[in-house]
Amino acid sequence: MQISKRAEEMVAYVRDLQTRICAGLEKVDGAGKFQTISWERPGGGGGDSKVLSDGKVFEKAGVNVSVVHGELPAAMMERFRTQSKNFFATGISLVLHPSSPQVPTVHANFRYFEQPDQAWFGGGADLTPYTVSELDFEHFHRTLKGACDSFRPGAYADFKKECDDYFFLPHRGETRGIGGIFFDYLRDDLEKAFSFVKAAGDSFLPAYLPIVERGKTKSFSERQKKFQLLRRGRYVEFNLVYDRGTLFGLQTKGNTESILMSLPAVVHFDFMANMETTDEERLLMSWFRSPRAWAGS
Amino acid sequence: MQISKRAEEMVAYVRDLQTRICAGLEKVDGAGKFQTISWERPGGGGGDSKVLSDGKVFEKAGVNVSVVHGELPAAMMERFRTQSKNFFATGISLVLHPSSPQVPTVHANFRYFEQPDQAWFGGGADLTPYTVSELDFEHFHRTLKGACDSFRPGAYADFKKECDDYFFLPHRGETRGIGGIFFDYLRDDLEKAFSFVKAAGDSFLPAYLPIVERGKTKSFSERQKKFQLLRRGRYVEFNLVYDRGTLFGLQTKGNTESILMSLPAVVHFDFMANMETTDEERLLMSWFRSPRAWAGS
Repeated sequence: MQISKRAEEMVAYVRDLQTRICAGLEKVDGAGKFQTISWERPGGGGGDSKVLSDGKVFEKAGVNVSVVHGELPAAMMERFRTQSKNFFATGISLVLHPSSPQVPTVHANFRYFEQPDQAWFGGGADLTPYTVSELDFEHFHRTLKGACDSFRPGAYADFKKECDDYFFLPHRGETRGIGGIFFDYLRDDLEKAFSFVKAAGDSFLPAYLPIVERGKTKSFSERQKKFQLLRRGRYVEFNLVYDRGTLFGLQTKGNTESILMSLPAVVHFDFMANMETTDEERLLMSWFRSPRAWAGS
Repeated sequence: MQISKRAEEMVAYVRDLQTRICAGLEKVDGAGKFQTISWERPGGGGGDSKVLSDGKVFEKAGVNVSVVHGELPAAMMERFRTQSKNFFATGISLVLHPSSPQVPTVHANFRYFEQPDQAWFGGGADLTPYTVSELDFEHFHRTLKGACDSFRPGAYADFKKECDDYFFLPHRGETRGIGGIFFDYLRDDLEKAFSFVKAAGDSFLPAYLPIVERGKTKSFSERQKKFQLLRRGRYVEFNLVYDRGTLFGLQTKGNTESILMSLPAVVHFDFMANMETTDEERLLMSWFRSPRAWAGS
């Protein structure tokens, strides 16, 4: 299918953002380098996965760009309420797993979907910390809020709630982390939505890098490391049981390695793990059970 | 609802089997002891999870008995093609994760489901090895085949194929391990099915214990350990993305800890992990990609 000028611009934007983000991450890591793995999608299109393993800060970091097109399966056509089989989709998605529990795991993605009869933007960014650093969590949320404010009044509050609702594990009664923003099906004013998505994408490095800078030099206890390994278990549970992007990707025969790049390198699953052995853990768990306002509303 | 005499007998059988299996496993472990955690199901019934952690042989071993009843969700009624909301179900399910890669992981479960208008048995047992020991794999399959032979001609071949089909990860193009048997909806002759299920349950220890005895004294390389940690990643992928029992349990608000007891304690998820670095790994992977006949047909 013929893609729109907006689609072309979004491809250019996510490619440039991938370059900028990887450069920023290599700089803060100080040792690790991203490797690029290009892949093709049998149904049409492909992508470039940039992966950094065993860096000084990042144990496993993946920043993936995909530019795909082809025909939707019937079930998807129904879900998207479209008469058109043809689709085009592009996006950037990243998950960064630092080795130190003093540096939070982060996830972000920004994406655009287009068919002859409709188009929309989606995305978000959320933080999964293993130690308490309230100023960092406020900084993360406030930076994202800054990008939302330009979109429409109340956008941050809405997207923050969508994020808390989405990254929730019903079988645990816990969120995955302390949230951020999540939005989907932005289609009312596509030009405005595109500007917002670019503002949100541009806010990723300013939101996350200062947190890495502050956390990476802090020492940590054996127990803090153990808590991280256990919480990574919850990360895996969420991604494999609930995450729509992951399940959609696996069901539609996407690139398995790029999809599961999001899983942490080392994970512990203990039986009846006690995750409230310290005041710090109890505080974190209280925020996972009952999301807190980090940047007003 | 009023349960049948068969249901009562199955409860007695799985409770006794749990006791026998845990005793056999403690003996072969030589150090670890099972702890019992009893839980209640909010919708009705409950269970007893027996868990052994950090034993000499077993890093994480769980043997769970559940005896539950209540009302089926509408979607389940539709799937089971029943007019009756009420159900009763009981079963034993176990997953054993040894620390040494020389001892295979094993899973087994035997279960009975009953409603006023229908009833059936299901279950199976399958082996997930990390090193090559062909005589052990043949012994495992032949022992299970012995239990199948008394059921009906061709039962082993059918259940072996069902097992290979079930424990398959489409996104990897691999089975989880070297299989065993899997069967479900045995309902034509319930008395005969019950006898078979008991024969299969009784065959678990004879099928598995000799393999543990042989493997537990063998030394292993660092790479063999790494291969095990990576294959455990596939185990997690299968259980969280595809396993019907796991997903059914999580969706119906079952006991989360008992359901996820099946996950190994320590797991690695490397990006583009090379799992064919030795002849042994290549041989195992060839069997995961194309299941082999281990006990004739």
